[in-house]
Amino acid sequence: MEVVVLRLGHRYVRDDRVTTHVFLTARAFGACKVIYSGQRDKKLEETVREVVEMWGDSFEVVYEGDWRQTIENWKVTGGEVIHLTVYGLPVQDVIPEIRESTKNKMVIVGGAKVPGIVYELAEWNVSITSQPHSEISALSIFLHELFNGKELSKTFKDAKIRVKPQTKGKNVLKL
Amino acid sequence: MEVVVLRLGHRYVRDDRVTTHVFLTARAFGACKVIYSGQRDKKLEETVREVVEMWGDSFEVVYEGDWRQTIENWKVTGGEVIHLTVYGLPVQDVIPEIRESTKNKMVIVGGAKVPGIVYELAEWNVSITSQPHSEISALSIFLHELFNGKELSKTFKDAKIRVKPQTKGKNVLKL
Repeated sequence: MEVVVLRLGHRYVRDDRVTTHVFLTARAFGACKVIYSGQRDKKLEETVREVVEMWGDSFEVVYEGDWRQTIENWKVTGGEVIHLTVYGLPVQDVIPEIRESTKNKMVIVGGAKVPGIVYELAEWNVSITSQPHSEISALSIFLHELFNGKELSKTFKDAKIRVKPQTKGKNVLKL
Repeated sequence: MEVVVLRLGHRYVRDDRVTTHVFLTARAFGACKVIYSGQRDKKLEETVREVVEMWGDSFEVVYEGDWRQTIENWKVTGGEVIHLTVYGLPVQDVIPEIRESTKNKMVIVGGAKVPGIVYELAEWNVSITSQPHSEISALSIFLHELFNGKELSKTFKDAKIRVKPQTKGKNVLKL
């Protein structure tokens, strides 16, 4: 099963750090690719590519301005669409059923205003608590639940550096 | 068991949105209070208080510039300190032991540069994956693991609005 993340409506400069956190979270928690719409930001893409180069494994970042087409193309290939939204069904209720399907999954995280059609195109609208917090938290918890915690032990191939976990202090291995 | 979150080294304007996400994540995932150091930001505090007023329950946000004193005071009262850092021990390895202790917990999330003394003051230095991602993801996953997923079903008292989960679309109840 392949998981890609679609970030809607990125705003240049304003969303810089939040979108970066979304992308790095997608990578660290087992997605293989992020697609984003809104305003293109080559510096942001570069930042993510530098992380991948240094910390390993393959992970793609792609800009696609026409998000609706992106979603529809995904569905045509037989992939499922999951939209993370505070208005959706609680993750703890739906995750067993979502986990059962081996279809590739697109996980959508919104920007400022998510068009109503996104709720219709998604097979699942899923909430991570029904409280306001962060698309970054929502994405990490969703992927953590989807992969049943196994993503925490994922190894990243062809890394140039790796952290050796320590009780105190820092230990970074150069490979 | 009471959980407070300490956010180190907030930078005015620059960290605005990321710190807001940290605070709202702390609230949504069951902490009762955030303390922050660095630069004071009254607008940020106001934003969080407005969310609490609208979405319910009690949740405090407090500025304390002398973070070292804050940590030492916490330890004097018998509370434990957990520092979330990419260099720490994997959460999946240490969470059973952390869960066993009923002591109140301070969870520290860093800013740009975390002074070495923080690693020493903490009883636990804990990593959420050993990959770069986001203090927001790290905090949400840590609290989710600490509360064993029960925080997802938390009810927030005295709320003025509440989301009624839906398969499609939005439903917000005014209470």
